[in-house]
Amino acid sequence: MPASLNRAVQYAHQNQNHFLNDLKKLVMIPSVSTDPEHKSDMLQAAEYLANELRSLGVSQVQLFPTQGHPIVFGNLSSARDNVPTVLIYGHYDVQPPDPLDLWQSLPFTPEQRGDHLYARGASDMKGQIIASLKAIESIVKTGEMPVNVKFLFEGEEEIGSPNLDSFIEDHKALLACQVVLNPDSGMIAPDVPTIIYALRGLAYFELRVYGPAHDLHSGVFGGVVYNPAQALSLLVAGMHDHQGRVTLPGFYDRVRPLAPEERDEFARLPLDEDYFLKQTGATELWGEAGFTPAERVGARPTLDVNGLYSGFTGKGSKTVIPAWAMGKISMRLVPDQDPQEVQQQLLRYLEEHPLPGIRWELTAMAGGPACITDRTSGYTQALARALETVWGKPPLFKREGGSIPVVASMQQLLGVDSVLTGFGLPDDNIHAPNERLHLPTWFMGIDSLVHFFFNLQENKDE
Amino acid sequence: MPASLNRAVQYAHQNQNHFLNDLKKLVMIPSVSTDPEHKSDMLQAAEYLANELRSLGVSQVQLFPTQGHPIVFGNLSSARDNVPTVLIYGHYDVQPPDPLDLWQSLPFTPEQRGDHLYARGASDMKGQIIASLKAIESIVKTGEMPVNVKFLFEGEEEIGSPNLDSFIEDHKALLACQVVLNPDSGMIAPDVPTIIYALRGLAYFELRVYGPAHDLHSGVFGGVVYNPAQALSLLVAGMHDHQGRVTLPGFYDRVRPLAPEERDEFARLPLDEDYFLKQTGATELWGEAGFTPAERVGARPTLDVNGLYSGFTGKGSKTVIPAWAMGKISMRLVPDQDPQEVQQQLLRYLEEHPLPGIRWELTAMAGGPACITDRTSGYTQALARALETVWGKPPLFKREGGSIPVVASMQQLLGVDSVLTGFGLPDDNIHAPNERLHLPTWFMGIDSLVHFFFNLQENKDE
Repeated sequence: MPASLNRAVQYAHQNQNHFLNDLKKLVMIPSVSTDPEHKSDMLQAAEYLANELRSLGVSQVQLFPTQGHPIVFGNLSSARDNVPTVLIYGHYDVQPPDPLDLWQSLPFTPEQRGDHLYARGASDMKGQIIASLKAIESIVKTGEMPVNVKFLFEGEEEIGSPNLDSFIEDHKALLACQVVLNPDSGMIAPDVPTIIYALRGLAYFELRVYGPAHDLHSGVFGGVVYNPAQALSLLVAGMHDHQGRVTLPGFYDRVRPLAPEERDEFARLPLDEDYFLKQTGATELWGEAGFTPAERVGARPTLDVNGLYSGFTGKGSKTVIPAWAMGKISMRLVPDQDPQEVQQQLLRYLEEHPLPGIRWELTAMAGGPACITDRTSGYTQALARALETVWGKPPLFKREGGSIPVVASMQQLLGVDSVLTGFGLPDDNIHAPNERLHLPTWFMGIDSLVHFFFNLQENKDE
Repeated sequence: MPASLNRAVQYAHQNQNHFLNDLKKLVMIPSVSTDPEHKSDMLQAAEYLANELRSLGVSQVQLFPTQGHPIVFGNLSSARDNVPTVLIYGHYDVQPPDPLDLWQSLPFTPEQRGDHLYARGASDMKGQIIASLKAIESIVKTGEMPVNVKFLFEGEEEIGSPNLDSFIEDHKALLACQVVLNPDSGMIAPDVPTIIYALRGLAYFELRVYGPAHDLHSGVFGGVVYNPAQALSLLVAGMHDHQGRVTLPGFYDRVRPLAPEERDEFARLPLDEDYFLKQTGATELWGEAGFTPAERVGARPTLDVNGLYSGFTGKGSKTVIPAWAMGKISMRLVPDQDPQEVQQQLLRYLEEHPLPGIRWELTAMAGGPACITDRTSGYTQALARALETVWGKPPLFKREGGSIPVVASMQQLLGVDSVLTGFGLPDDNIHAPNERLHLPTWFMGIDSLVHFFFNLQENKDE
């Protein structure tokens, strides 16, 4: 191991407490991007990251205002010539913490219990941003960066990154790089280092169903109007058939079939039925017939109801026929489905299922296509070797069920691939109560990112 | 017209402002029985009525505590012998006012706009209680009561009267009477005096559907578990068939078929399709095939979703697979359906539709059987003549879609029929935002109750 790498790894080991404290400071800022009441918290989180960058000696730290929350940019040039530039992407916003009553500790008061740090954002993805920054800190405090690094931290990932694409488009020269490091994915298990080479896309909608002009008494009017909550239920129920397939017209037309080699690869992943039963706590699994659970999550499109609301939902009883009902409905997409096409398919489905006295409104909330990246590139191999050095075994390559639309944007707008990793785990409860981060895995992640940056210098600036 | 009756009617005419002010005072008390935070308001409303009774010279005014909200009782004996005793039933609790943002004025700040008084409870049924009390005030301030009157005002009607039956059972002697006056129904239109002779029953449930052990990320786990919101939608959607019939097994087994004479009577009511379109603001009607809208509301059982809740319902998007979903589901029943039997039918329906990884819990919230009363009795005829005197035309007899379980209780526990009337109108928005009371109809209602009490004296105490 070269001396400079050795010093950096030692620094990382000696500063674990300090790294953890800095993460705690960041997760204490309730940067919930979807909620207008947290606008000032969003700014505070952006400022926190800008200060972190300044303390690394990043020369060009800038906060770019957007129509929503600001984008944090930084540029840290290596003293060496002819080395590649890696752009580190992250998002500093988090999901809303509700339902609050299911948290064992307060979502924005980080609490360490056993090997875990519990807080909203600890895993998704403030922990991953801090891991990247602390790997760089370990290098710059003990020597110099072997590659150029740029930083792009947005505050709107959890609401669909509405202002990111236009920012990238407007700042192509500023963001120019050879590869993106995106640590917004995760590992399969603490002892299974993982590189994600494909992601599902997302198409998220709010469907509002309207019936009578106002709420009605269910005694006085029960029997004469179609109930909007019943209409929504019928529409939602009809979106799957008995084989667990999505019924939107044309939904599967552009889905790439799984090659036999890919199915073999899926079969090698330690993601059997028992694994998913344990992770979900469900008593039985369910999904599209003809595919394994890992295939369904990684390589097949799905449709889920994310929320339902209608009428009286408080304690007790209220005999009302609600005037309207609302469903949040989203699809996970795979190559080569297109979010706009899926919206048209949903509209066609709704139009093909008219109900008496019922009208509806559909709003697209967020979306992005699926993507697959090249896993034989030198950048991906640099990460693979780094993970192997720290974990003592080669990483698994995996297609991921979640969506990271920015990966597609970077490909389309900057022409660069993303190397996807991250040190969260499947049972981190991201987007759910009691989100947590497994600290031993996180510290090994910081080590492996130190190795990654040193490995990267073998890739020339092309 | 006898002089005493004449004086009472004159008093009623001269005191309309004072009557209205007393109603305003009562509706300003937010007596929402279902909400524990309004417990002290419930007591305040009960005390208000007790004071009203005292001011009428009612000798025996008592507040009976229950496990929930208190029952107000009073006894006003006539100086005459051998006259019947009428028990006036009312409820001083109201429905919750939500959704608050749809009210044009505050729900508990009564506002007069045009001919209407807007406030929660103005029509259902504080207005009807005050109408009864003010009719009696008009008589006792100008003469003496021609009949004995007892008062029973409960505070739990809107939550299913959980403590009323046991109270009636324990106080049969105190409540002994020849007939109940229950003004908790209404009129078809301002110019159509109405007597209700049948009511639908109610069976109200909360259905909770559970799936994974906790909320899941829809990307990481979309495709492996049955989504509880989808499960609830499927279960709700399946509760009606394409003919608009309820599919619970055995649901129609005990429904009395409509006799040809009854269908003729329904056809005479001014309740055609246009009427229901106007009242509901729906663009199209819907319901059980083979029956007119008026028949469906008055004489056929129905099932409605009163509320839906699952997952994320705030602004924006949250990509969650919810751990559970909740539906409030209620049935309106007709003779001779039984609420307990209907609960068994719903349980059987749920058991016959198992879904993978999904379990459910069903809670019965409120309920009571339907009932039909004798419309040829002397008491009903006393009311019919009173309405005819004031409105100048005979009342229509109607089967009502709403539920008043206390009518069945009075029949079963005290062995007495109820005379059902009330001066609310179908567009009073009861149980909905902007509840209101049509004041010209209400004042005529007070007059007609004055006549009713005088007419009643022809019925002997049997």
